Amino acid sequence: MSYRIEKDTMGEVKVPSDKYWGAQTERSRNNFKIGPEASMPKEIIYAFAYLKKAAAMANQELGVLSAEKKDLIAKACDEILTGKLDGEFPLVIWQTGSGTQSNMNVNEVIAYRAHVMQGGQLADEKKVLHPNDDVNKSQSSNDTFPTAMHIAAYKQVVEVTIPGMKKLRDTLHKKAESYKNIVKTGRTHFMDATPLTLGQEFSGYVQQIDNSIRAINNALEVVRELALGGTAVGTGLNAPKGYDVLVAKKIAELTGYPFITAPNKFEALAAHDAMVELSGALKRAAVAFMKIANDIRMLSSGPRSGIGEIIIPDNEPGSSIMPGKVNPTQPEALTMVCAQVIGNDVAVSIGGATGHFELNVFKPVIAANVLQSARLIGDACVSFNDKCAEGIEPNNEVIKKHMENSLMLVTALNTHIGYENAAKIAKKAHKENKTLREAAVELGLLTSAQFDEWVKPEKMVGSL
Amino acid sequence: MSYRIEKDTMGEVKVPSDKYWGAQTERSRNNFKIGPEASMPKEIIYAFAYLKKAAAMANQELGVLSAEKKDLIAKACDEILTGKLDGEFPLVIWQTGSGTQSNMNVNEVIAYRAHVMQGGQLADEKKVLHPNDDVNKSQSSNDTFPTAMHIAAYKQVVEVTIPGMKKLRDTLHKKAESYKNIVKTGRTHFMDATPLTLGQEFSGYVQQIDNSIRAINNALEVVRELALGGTAVGTGLNAPKGYDVLVAKKIAELTGYPFITAPNKFEALAAHDAMVELSGALKRAAVAFMKIANDIRMLSSGPRSGIGEIIIPDNEPGSSIMPGKVNPTQPEALTMVCAQVIGNDVAVSIGGATGHFELNVFKPVIAANVLQSARLIGDACVSFNDKCAEGIEPNNEVIKKHMENSLMLVTALNTHIGYENAAKIAKKAHKENKTLREAAVELGLLTSAQFDEWVKPEKMVGSL
Amino acid sequence: MSYRIEKDTMGEVKVPSDKYWGAQTERSRNNFKIGPEASMPKEIIYAFAYLKKAAAMANQELGVLSAEKKDLIAKACDEILTGKLDGEFPLVIWQTGSGTQSNMNVNEVIAYRAHVMQGGQLADEKKVLHPNDDVNKSQSSNDTFPTAMHIAAYKQVVEVTIPGMKKLRDTLHKKAESYKNIVKTGRTHFMDATPLTLGQEFSGYVQQIDNSIRAINNALEVVRELALGGTAVGTGLNAPKGYDVLVAKKIAELTGYPFITAPNKFEALAAHDAMVELSGALKRAAVAFMKIANDIRMLSSGPRSGIGEIIIPDNEPGSSIMPGKVNPTQPEALTMVCAQVIGNDVAVSIGGATGHFELNVFKPVIAANVLQSARLIGDACVSFNDKCAEGIEPNNEVIKKHMENSLMLVTALNTHIGYENAAKIAKKAHKENKTLREAAVELGLLTSAQFDEWVKPEKMVGSL
Amino acid sequence: MSYRIEKDTMGEVKVPSDKYWGAQTERSRNNFKIGPEASMPKEIIYAFAYLKKAAAMANQELGVLSAEKKDLIAKACDEILTGKLDGEFPLVIWQTGSGTQSNMNVNEVIAYRAHVMQGGQLADEKKVLHPNDDVNKSQSSNDTFPTAMHIAAYKQVVEVTIPGMKKLRDTLHKKAESYKNIVKTGRTHFMDATPLTLGQEFSGYVQQIDNSIRAINNALEVVRELALGGTAVGTGLNAPKGYDVLVAKKIAELTGYPFITAPNKFEALAAHDAMVELSGALKRAAVAFMKIANDIRMLSSGPRSGIGEIIIPDNEPGSSIMPGKVNPTQPEALTMVCAQVIGNDVAVSIGGATGHFELNVFKPVIAANVLQSARLIGDACVSFNDKCAEGIEPNNEVIKKHMENSLMLVTALNTHIGYENAAKIAKKAHKENKTLREAAVELGLLTSAQFDEWVKPEKMVGSL
Repeated sequence: MSYRIEKDTMGEVKVPSDKYWGAQTERSRNNFKIGPEASMPKEIIYAFAYLKKAAAMANQELGVLSAEKKDLIAKACDEILTGKLDGEFPLVIWQTGSGTQSNMNVNEVIAYRAHVMQGGQLADEKKVLHPNDDVNKSQSSNDTFPTAMHIAAYKQVVEVTIPGMKKLRDTLHKKAESYKNIVKTGRTHFMDATPLTLGQEFSGYVQQIDNSIRAINNALEVVRELALGGTAVGTGLNAPKGYDVLVAKKIAELTGYPFITAPNKFEALAAHDAMVELSGALKRAAVAFMKIANDIRMLSSGPRSGIGEIIIPDNEPGSSIMPGKVNPTQPEALTMVCAQVIGNDVAVSIGGATGHFELNVFKPVIAANVLQSARLIGDACVSFNDKCAEGIEPNNEVIKKHMENSLMLVTALNTHIGYENAAKIAKKAHKENKTLREAAVELGLLTSAQFDEWVKPEKMVGSL
Repeated sequence: MSYRIEKDTMGEVKVPSDKYWGAQTERSRNNFKIGPEASMPKEIIYAFAYLKKAAAMANQELGVLSAEKKDLIAKACDEILTGKLDGEFPLVIWQTGSGTQSNMNVNEVIAYRAHVMQGGQLADEKKVLHPNDDVNKSQSSNDTFPTAMHIAAYKQVVEVTIPGMKKLRDTLHKKAESYKNIVKTGRTHFMDATPLTLGQEFSGYVQQIDNSIRAINNALEVVRELALGGTAVGTGLNAPKGYDVLVAKKIAELTGYPFITAPNKFEALAAHDAMVELSGALKRAAVAFMKIANDIRMLSSGPRSGIGEIIIPDNEPGSSIMPGKVNPTQPEALTMVCAQVIGNDVAVSIGGATGHFELNVFKPVIAANVLQSARLIGDACVSFNDKCAEGIEPNNEVIKKHMENSLMLVTALNTHIGYENAAKIAKKAHKENKTLREAAVELGLLTSAQFDEWVKPEKMVGSL
Repeated sequence: MSYRIEKDTMGEVKVPSDKYWGAQTERSRNNFKIGPEASMPKEIIYAFAYLKKAAAMANQELGVLSAEKKDLIAKACDEILTGKLDGEFPLVIWQTGSGTQSNMNVNEVIAYRAHVMQGGQLADEKKVLHPNDDVNKSQSSNDTFPTAMHIAAYKQVVEVTIPGMKKLRDTLHKKAESYKNIVKTGRTHFMDATPLTLGQEFSGYVQQIDNSIRAINNALEVVRELALGGTAVGTGLNAPKGYDVLVAKKIAELTGYPFITAPNKFEALAAHDAMVELSGALKRAAVAFMKIANDIRMLSSGPRSGIGEIIIPDNEPGSSIMPGKVNPTQPEALTMVCAQVIGNDVAVSIGGATGHFELNVFKPVIAANVLQSARLIGDACVSFNDKCAEGIEPNNEVIKKHMENSLMLVTALNTHIGYENAAKIAKKAHKENKTLREAAVELGLLTSAQFDEWVKPEKMVGSL
Repeated sequence: MSYRIEKDTMGEVKVPSDKYWGAQTERSRNNFKIGPEASMPKEIIYAFAYLKKAAAMANQELGVLSAEKKDLIAKACDEILTGKLDGEFPLVIWQTGSGTQSNMNVNEVIAYRAHVMQGGQLADEKKVLHPNDDVNKSQSSNDTFPTAMHIAAYKQVVEVTIPGMKKLRDTLHKKAESYKNIVKTGRTHFMDATPLTLGQEFSGYVQQIDNSIRAINNALEVVRELALGGTAVGTGLNAPKGYDVLVAKKIAELTGYPFITAPNKFEALAAHDAMVELSGALKRAAVAFMKIANDIRMLSSGPRSGIGEIIIPDNEPGSSIMPGKVNPTQPEALTMVCAQVIGNDVAVSIGGATGHFELNVFKPVIAANVLQSARLIGDACVSFNDKCAEGIEPNNEVIKKHMENSLMLVTALNTHIGYENAAKIAKKAHKENKTLREAAVELGLLTSAQFDEWVKPEKMVGSL
């Protein structure tokens, strides 16, 4: 492998000669061999590209950067956003807790790529842009990394998480509508209970998703606040006046999302409560999906010795040993995702709780977990939707059989004969394996005609 | 001990003769000897008192309960709310997951206490009210317990959590204002960094609390939705038309809080996402307070070999062996509370994720954890405020010494001589244990006069 | 209320005149009004009584305490262990993180109670024992509190947790033995699978509990190591030579458990990894019980529209609205306990991870959570055992019906006709709602006689 | 892109023509587009290669597989272990919860690669080995996937985690030895306390790591038990007699690790408590490392306004804006890893707790989290060791200054003049900013000579 020599304030470093990164990236690459290479999420890198371009634009507009340098930076950033330079970001999550090294990785790649774009050589000692003095102008890792976290998380949630959730929500809503007349036995404590419609059951799932989306949107309200402009400790040292507001505006323009400058930069650097809040909202969604997916898996259980009230698509052979087996694999994938998201939330909370003084130094682990949670929920919803939810069919025969057998229809009698008499009927029917009608009449508590009049499952499901 | 005989649908039970509870309470007491007695939070019992009274009022208004019975129920409920009957609720959290037994405990106590208030005897076989048919009319445990959870949680948060948080917030805000001219060294990565004011540092804490309150208030928006009216499975079986809206209105009137009926009762019984969301918001606050309390404890460390930039009140002898020792005990109590709240949130999430079909049966564990978290945060904030935050004083001598020594003042030179030259100065000063001015001048990078002009800590703290 | 004046190194304090505690307890009571009063677990107080007595004995034996004072201390400690003085320990978990105040509470109560036992008055300014110089001799809160934690946790686990687990384990083992010939359908992915015996299914639960007990016992190996003798920072300052070993021996004698002195006192004060490990082992047990209890609840589901392969005892009316309903309330209580224990483990981990330098100051929150987890698991196992597991009965009729219907019996054909042909049979049977035999013969893949020879459920359950 | 047609029991599937995988892999690839491609850990794939080879050997030895087929399978497995076929395993973690699809991916790649190795073509309809009937013989996903989990986890822990931990442990032990005479101020509650040696402080870290290794080794005792032989539901259906013991022996031989067959296969399929236990042990290590790394970061804080008692290597420029800044980046990376591991443990616990009946279907998420935790801890320990711990140097000047100033040296006077008098001295010295000697003499509590005799820091550090 051939190398060139790069320098930073600590001295010389050998860098692979064809790579755009510089001394500081290379140091980090050597100093942090923890887990697989290049684990720093690409979403963070792309978010940096937006913010570096926006910073250059704001710097130029405020008179601290030449138009030429601004253009150079912008051009390199645009190229990063195409994905062409993905191989230039080799660093891992498990680096300095401020993410400084990934900030410098971006600064170096922009500076050196711009130099080459201008016709220079990577081996040139002097390059057209300086990673710190130009690309990082009016910035610090301490305000850029949290800004990149917020941009990346906001985009991931708005572009992946919520669309996935909405897709699944709409399918379940359609199902709820189309099942609104299918009366079935309810189950509480996993035991037979009074009836409801299959549509009502599904409407609960829809509400859970709607509420989860609302909670996530609430969290986004703080995630859209950006730390940029706080520089090293929140005071904005070395940034021109008005820079923070302007650069947020530029980022909003470039991304198309309503980013604004954070009202208090000290909080924005020292705490990542906004990310903790977003993680908590994603966790709340995971809790909801765990319930929904478990219901679907259990409702479809069988085919002969389970609950079997719905049929889900069989997408693949379910077993490597049991021929013909079909399994609820999409609910399984979704519930595994949920377990991960709940675990990730704990990692994020610990990271968020362990900041000190002017800087939280658990930034990369917070960012990586939130981004993973956001991606997994979005993807898993689409997968679950396309390969499972859309294909759900009621098993009307089973539903009917279960409903007619249910002892809990007796509840309709409470208002006529009282809870205690109704209980006697249910107990007798259960013990003697009889129908409720038989038991009721035998006990002399009501006539068969009264039974027919009072116990009508379809009247027991309300008008909700 | 003397007993009387009570009956339920399963038969006879011996109940302590002087207790107002009945057969079902006694069964639960015997069946669930898990942890200390009477662990079901009193807040839940009181919330039940509100809802039972409201239910009686709504039932009467809708014509399904006599005015006389309504009055009897209301009177017994009022007495519960005085705390006089606290000894009548012996059940534990670790009972049936629907909380049915606590619902019945309340039903029984109301029915039997009302009977005695009317001049009856506990030993009378027939009482003036029936626990199920009268007190529980138009209700099920499945909709009352979640309603009680929401009422109790809402009240706890609004009456304990938020006032505590606001009290502390206001004190820290006052401190931030009064410290706005105290320039001190910043710290990032726990290492010396560029300066900021002590007021700015504290303003970050204020922002953290403000954001936490906002997040909690967002969660309250769903907590104020009540399940009541859904009865057994969400369909409202056995409840009169219009009951759900009316009973929520009654609860709102009785409590003075803006409770409304839940838009979807199936979700409100089968999932407790609203409580999960509230727990998540409390956890987010815990994350914030962990950071704040750690900062305070570390800033006050010493007295001679720590950071020592602030002085906190000494409220008690700190050590049983080291005479004269003073410790940051209030921050310790607060951070322990935060650890508990983060742990509680996991318990709540698991409970929330593990509901099935029409009912989540982790209700008591969810309720108990959320109520504990809400109480602990509120109480700990008041304690921390009264015994620590209010008494914080800056240690100006130490602050000044630290600030003047800081090598990171060199950052002010970046825009004049570039990052690399500035780094040379800092490194030389550090290595040779010199002042920045000495190092700068010796390196010939600037004059002493320039140094004085450019490096002014009070100019480095921005105008934020 | 009447008061007397007590003093400590910070000055005078008014203490309720009839209480045995002194100035420092009273200060803590006033300084930490967080959550309900007296929340510091009683198990910790009793553990302190053992250690204070043991310390007095060791001190006397090593010549630094008079025999008379030793006897006085021992007598007061013995009284604490009777429970008579329970009302003298009003402090909360949420105090100083070292537990100093509870250590002093115990020191004060012992000193003052001994004084009164000797015929003195609480109001006497000079008492027969000094809380620090006598009762706390050769000790610091920093080594006593962790010692009390370990004593309390060890006792709780050995006296409550493990006996409870073993009781349930033995019942399940008996069930496994008696069900060893009941062939039933297996379920994987919640879907019908190849058969096994009900005894085999239960044997898995037994193995889970056995392994959990082993893991807990492994953790006890470090919990039995005691910090006592380390005093303030682990160096043993102010403790006589040989004291650490001797005092551990005394504690072992007094409690009857194999306590030993910790090999490294610095670790024993600064970290509570042993408690974290124990909490992790309890959490592992909770994970096991969650699975077991869920299985029991699901296997007993129905009575008519569930799985219904076992019948569990009906201990109480299950519903306040649905007459005659029976619910799996014991599994519910147990799974709620499991959720709590998993949450508690996170609180303990955070507390354990956040110690600094020579002292971890999350001691009370760690202790309280571990003790609660240990108690809840033990109690819940006994409750689940007595009120549910012992009464479990197989529902042979349902088991037989399910087993005979199972399409997964087809798996027995793999070795005769190959996986792909077997799959064809299963799919045809499923699609056309036929028996496997019918489908097999119709497809011409085997004869009816071959089917009978090859597909024998009772031969499919192995000899394991 | 060109395709070939593959078939399984559900019909035809188009597979990229140059890929060794077959129909079921391709179905999974299309059905589960969740998160980045090929996220199923490579360690699982390699573990499968060992087990498939071992299974073939056992099958041949027990007479159910020809020697020729055994050789073919073994050859393909060996090739997988070289890493050459890494591109053939495109599936994700978020698939079926049994990992069936990854089991089939391995079965297909072995079968088809063997076919090609024998001179066949991928496009041949009939191949030399059948994925199910040959490669998966005597196996089910239900026993192979947990076996692969155990093999992979055991190897990762033994080859990465423990060596990394031991390396760091040995370095810290060397430091502890070489610092054994450096007396320094202790710190409890983050406040100055009585002295100890720097060596003693480090010895606590060594003990923490030793205990963590012991805990991990305890967990490995169950991880070495293998599910293989249980097949579909634990009964061993379709596996020859003696197969389970033999195949575990083969795996032990091939890997060089002491694997044995699990004593109860029902537990081994239905629960992953062994993995939960291992995760808990890794979490316990994370808790320990969080404390150690925080101590190192705080002890090295400064350089001028922190604690500064040790100096750690400066490996990279610490700040993109503050020139010359050096940060504790290795402790930061390690603590971020610890946060992740604690979070992962929650995901594993939830997965472990949510199995039902004969199969836990959270296998992939459990495996992925345990493997990540094990890898991260091992790697981070090596990184922290090589780039930080080895280079730690005491800052003797600062240590001495802190130690001499410490007011807590007064504790040595307790046994001479009592706790209360000693407290008076400390308080006076603190208030009047004097030395202890000055305060003591001024108070007339002892002479200067007595002070010198009694207060000797080097005598206060014990002989532990």
